[in-house]
Amino acid sequence: MKTIKRSMHRKNKIKKNPIPNYYIAVDLGGTNIRTAVVDEHGQILDRLQILTLAHQGAEQVLIRIKKLIYQLLKQTKTIYRIAAIGIGSPGCIDVMQGTVLFATNNLPGWKGTNLRAALETGFAIPVFVDNDANTAAYGEKFCGAGKTVSNFIAITIGTGVGGGIIINNEVYRGHNFYGGEIGHMTICYNGPKCNCGNFGCLEAYISASALVDFSIRMIQTNPKTKLGTMLAKNRNRLTPETIYHAALQGDIVAKKIITEAGYHLGIGLSNLINLFSPEMIAIGGGIAQSGTLLFTPARKEIRNRALFINERSIPIVPTKLGVDAGLIGAGLLAKQYYQSLK
Amino acid sequence: MKTIKRSMHRKNKIKKNPIPNYYIAVDLGGTNIRTAVVDEHGQILDRLQILTLAHQGAEQVLIRIKKLIYQLLKQTKTIYRIAAIGIGSPGCIDVMQGTVLFATNNLPGWKGTNLRAALETGFAIPVFVDNDANTAAYGEKFCGAGKTVSNFIAITIGTGVGGGIIINNEVYRGHNFYGGEIGHMTICYNGPKCNCGNFGCLEAYISASALVDFSIRMIQTNPKTKLGTMLAKNRNRLTPETIYHAALQGDIVAKKIITEAGYHLGIGLSNLINLFSPEMIAIGGGIAQSGTLLFTPARKEIRNRALFINERSIPIVPTKLGVDAGLIGAGLLAKQYYQSLK
Repeated sequence: MKTIKRSMHRKNKIKKNPIPNYYIAVDLGGTNIRTAVVDEHGQILDRLQILTLAHQGAEQVLIRIKKLIYQLLKQTKTIYRIAAIGIGSPGCIDVMQGTVLFATNNLPGWKGTNLRAALETGFAIPVFVDNDANTAAYGEKFCGAGKTVSNFIAITIGTGVGGGIIINNEVYRGHNFYGGEIGHMTICYNGPKCNCGNFGCLEAYISASALVDFSIRMIQTNPKTKLGTMLAKNRNRLTPETIYHAALQGDIVAKKIITEAGYHLGIGLSNLINLFSPEMIAIGGGIAQSGTLLFTPARKEIRNRALFINERSIPIVPTKLGVDAGLIGAGLLAKQYYQSLK
Repeated sequence: MKTIKRSMHRKNKIKKNPIPNYYIAVDLGGTNIRTAVVDEHGQILDRLQILTLAHQGAEQVLIRIKKLIYQLLKQTKTIYRIAAIGIGSPGCIDVMQGTVLFATNNLPGWKGTNLRAALETGFAIPVFVDNDANTAAYGEKFCGAGKTVSNFIAITIGTGVGGGIIINNEVYRGHNFYGGEIGHMTICYNGPKCNCGNFGCLEAYISASALVDFSIRMIQTNPKTKLGTMLAKNRNRLTPETIYHAALQGDIVAKKIITEAGYHLGIGLSNLINLFSPEMIAIGGGIAQSGTLLFTPARKEIRNRALFINERSIPIVPTKLGVDAGLIGAGLLAKQYYQSLK
């Protein structure tokens, strides 16, 4: 009797504590490929990164991704049971097929790549591919700024302006995965030219290059400022981060640039609020460091433009996970995909 | 044995053909209250309408709605088994509670009205309340222009610009039902003042009053046109419909007004396409009669502004059900609600 009880007890114990699954997350960028082992709760356990060397073409990038994953698996000495691979890639991704429908110019030849097929052949485990803004938003939703809400938007302001929309705890991708292009929402149809070829997109006002362009124009008329001196020394040093630091040191031009960015950001966010009514919006990327300097004018413009705004609270906050958001999100999306296959 | 078989057969027959349910649909407008009996497939069988007389206040409007429903039931001599009531109301609606969270100025005192409580007490059947742009979009989705698609947006251009967003065959309302405010999307932040108090909303460019204002300005500089003559005779005759008819007769100013409206509409639609990636967008309201005159510049602007537009086909079409869309949608939403209660 005792023996039976014990064995039953052991059986129950095994059921309650099965061997945990781990996931390989890949965050593919124009400059670096980053990879990590992520646990079921989105914690990063091991990581590795190499240069993307995108100019070598899609095939070489694919080889480098595979190599990096092998290296990570070797490094972790197979102590983890890896259940699936999750990848965040720039461009528009068919998440059903795991194929890159479109890619930006910084990944030449990437369009048409079937990442799922390529990696499932190599590693014989399920592979889930999504747009990198979606993986980042998913990471922030479950482990970062958006933990407490179900309807959430995360925006990353960098070279471009990318965003991920979470509705009822799921990534919203639109029909055929073409939706969620937050950066290419027109906020002023006769505004400045955007990288996409159109005029007045949000990206054309607040991306890193838009801010640098605006700074150069501002400095031409106000050369005797900290930013002016910086630009005179080395034009390449002008980035959203250096603008922010100049603003911190009291540079009036730098302050104006960030305030304007906050104003334009606020117009874009008002549109998202009027259309999606999220519970929270998180902003990441270099310029988001600027804190109140960016967020105060953005919030002011939201109070002006978003309907019913006095009746609801929509926190506009900085992201929490930094560049790890994409890895964590890719890991958690791999987990979701793996569980859906069971 | 034979008897048993027969009775089983009868039982099956009854199961297959139960008594059908019908629904009372109400479409509440600033001018008229319209009501109808709608069958399970969205067909309108009987209808009645009276003036809203909104200036008499919310309580009187509620009494008039009740009266109209009683009259409709009397008229149909209870030949239909009415299972539920569906109502489309202007304003922001808490569909869980059936309460009006916000209402526009053309329904004074309407804010805070609990339509569900008021009507469930009176009629002792379930009541479902939604925003009127949502009921119209739902109607168009299931019985009109959007029949063949699952991801659909319907926009009505009238006094205001209202829209309903359908994602995976369900109305998308956003957190706490504040979403879907298509008319108050900023398309040019330093644009004309909107009724909501902001600047550059889509509504401020293409609503009936915006078109009339634009016409008056245009006529002042071009008085010797058909529109100019019309305006000289009777300023009140100037409506989107009369502008359209003048355009049909070759009036250059009228043509320009509609072309401009199409251009601005196209910018708004591009934003919706970039964010939601619908399969189809339907446009209703007086100005939508203008056909190619409105749709051609709108489609052109979409080709300019929507990403990946060459890789997908998003038909921009006129709505099919006219003013009945709201009634049909309210009926079908009542059916969905009734079935969810089982």
